[in-house]
Amino acid sequence: MNSEEKVFFNKVSIMGVGLIGASFALALKKRGLCGSVTGFGRNGSNLLKAGERGIIDSFDLDPVRASADSDLVLFAMHAGSFTETAKRIAGSLKQGAVVTDVGSVKGSLVYELENILSPQASFVGAHPIAGGEKSGIDTADAELFQGRRCIITPTGKTDKTAVEMMAALWQSLGAEVVFMSPEEHDRVLGAVSHLPHIIAYEMVNAAGEIDESCLKYSGAGFRDVTRIASSSPELWRDVCMLNKGNLIHFVDVFIRRLEAVRGYMASDDAESLEEDFRKAKTLRDGLGQD
Amino acid sequence: MNSEEKVFFNKVSIMGVGLIGASFALALKKRGLCGSVTGFGRNGSNLLKAGERGIIDSFDLDPVRASADSDLVLFAMHAGSFTETAKRIAGSLKQGAVVTDVGSVKGSLVYELENILSPQASFVGAHPIAGGEKSGIDTADAELFQGRRCIITPTGKTDKTAVEMMAALWQSLGAEVVFMSPEEHDRVLGAVSHLPHIIAYEMVNAAGEIDESCLKYSGAGFRDVTRIASSSPELWRDVCMLNKGNLIHFVDVFIRRLEAVRGYMASDDAESLEEDFRKAKTLRDGLGQD
Repeated sequence: MNSEEKVFFNKVSIMGVGLIGASFALALKKRGLCGSVTGFGRNGSNLLKAGERGIIDSFDLDPVRASADSDLVLFAMHAGSFTETAKRIAGSLKQGAVVTDVGSVKGSLVYELENILSPQASFVGAHPIAGGEKSGIDTADAELFQGRRCIITPTGKTDKTAVEMMAALWQSLGAEVVFMSPEEHDRVLGAVSHLPHIIAYEMVNAAGEIDESCLKYSGAGFRDVTRIASSSPELWRDVCMLNKGNLIHFVDVFIRRLEAVRGYMASDDAESLEEDFRKAKTLRDGLGQD
Repeated sequence: MNSEEKVFFNKVSIMGVGLIGASFALALKKRGLCGSVTGFGRNGSNLLKAGERGIIDSFDLDPVRASADSDLVLFAMHAGSFTETAKRIAGSLKQGAVVTDVGSVKGSLVYELENILSPQASFVGAHPIAGGEKSGIDTADAELFQGRRCIITPTGKTDKTAVEMMAALWQSLGAEVVFMSPEEHDRVLGAVSHLPHIIAYEMVNAAGEIDESCLKYSGAGFRDVTRIASSSPELWRDVCMLNKGNLIHFVDVFIRRLEAVRGYMASDDAESLEEDFRKAKTLRDGLGQD
């Protein structure tokens, strides 16, 4: 198939109906790209609410039943439960189904899922860069992926037709599709997303450790730096653990940068400190304001 | 005087006409709290532009002439030049003039300025928590201080009447006035403002060191965490150097926090990592979203 063509899935299962899963469902429905959507999750009242809002057409608290006759199964729960869920549903998936995900971490997980799910179904890893610190279906939006990048992470074994279908699907949702290997994805996202989350969480914890009562004097700067510390601890626990190979190294890089700054202050080297800050400003200004 | 009363200054000098200095001038003029405003700065074309926009009524490239007959002199240039400027103008200031500032760092600087300027003039340290990563007169705003905190930092030697006048002035501009010692100010702001600036600059530098080409995949999270890395390198060089006593210690606290996270990842301790992130989320959620 040509990635310019529209894809259509008769039945879609959303495993994990949070902001991204719900937005994906709404986006597919709005564009007429699916017949019906079934939701799976641990929280019945959330699924009920998603049903009332027309995000999903039905739901099942059992992952096997929720996915058994689907043409497209989206993993949108926390990445830490991907492997276990894949093992539970693998044997009962429809022959030829496509399983994909929206997880923030890929790496070895993609190879594992590919092995667990084949030959019954094809797995295609995907990561739409959208969402931020918000979570839950209340802010779900059919246009969430419009103008965002979606990274698709095929391996040497990934079914090419399934990859093309997923590329076409994400393009239909308004995303710009980029292909990377799972390893490249985790290196890139480790640097620009996972490490910043660790930094934001620990900036809050450091301020709390210094003196919690300081926090009431925080201004826009502190709020910006720490906004993503409101993100889900479970989600980022999973991401950090699954990408720890890169992140341990990146934390070391960051600590070395802090030690350099510490050294400039300790040795009264104002010139090097300014040069260091200026280098950062030039790079950051290059990204543009938003 | 009573801090509920309005204050009025016949002539005001703004030393350093950037975002904060210009907004202060506009705020005073809008509320009829001054007769005329003179600007001083290193950049003649900026002063000319400020004059054309009615931010200042006159300007002088010589700090002595710019401040000689003023009732209120505001130091709004980079903190690194406060001492030198104070030394230059001290002898020619009007008897009884009030000199104040809007700098992000206080500490020993307040005691130095107090000594340099007295007995001719009274120095009162002040720090309105407003501005963020923007700079320059293009975004100057008479309402910039509305609803913001302004920290006033008297010492045991600071003239009490001058302190009350400054408190009344900032309240007139819509700010909530808080009193702290210069030392307490630098500890609090070091934790919630200065350290976050170092973190933001070094997050950008770390990503650049890992792989600059990663930056094009940065999402809202990275942009939030690093937004203040677009702040002035000279200004933050000065702040870091002047508050290095606290900041060296705070950088160490932060490094220890990162080392804890590194340890949780290295030892597969997902539970401690989640607990650590959750503690941060709880603290951050307490500040509210904005």
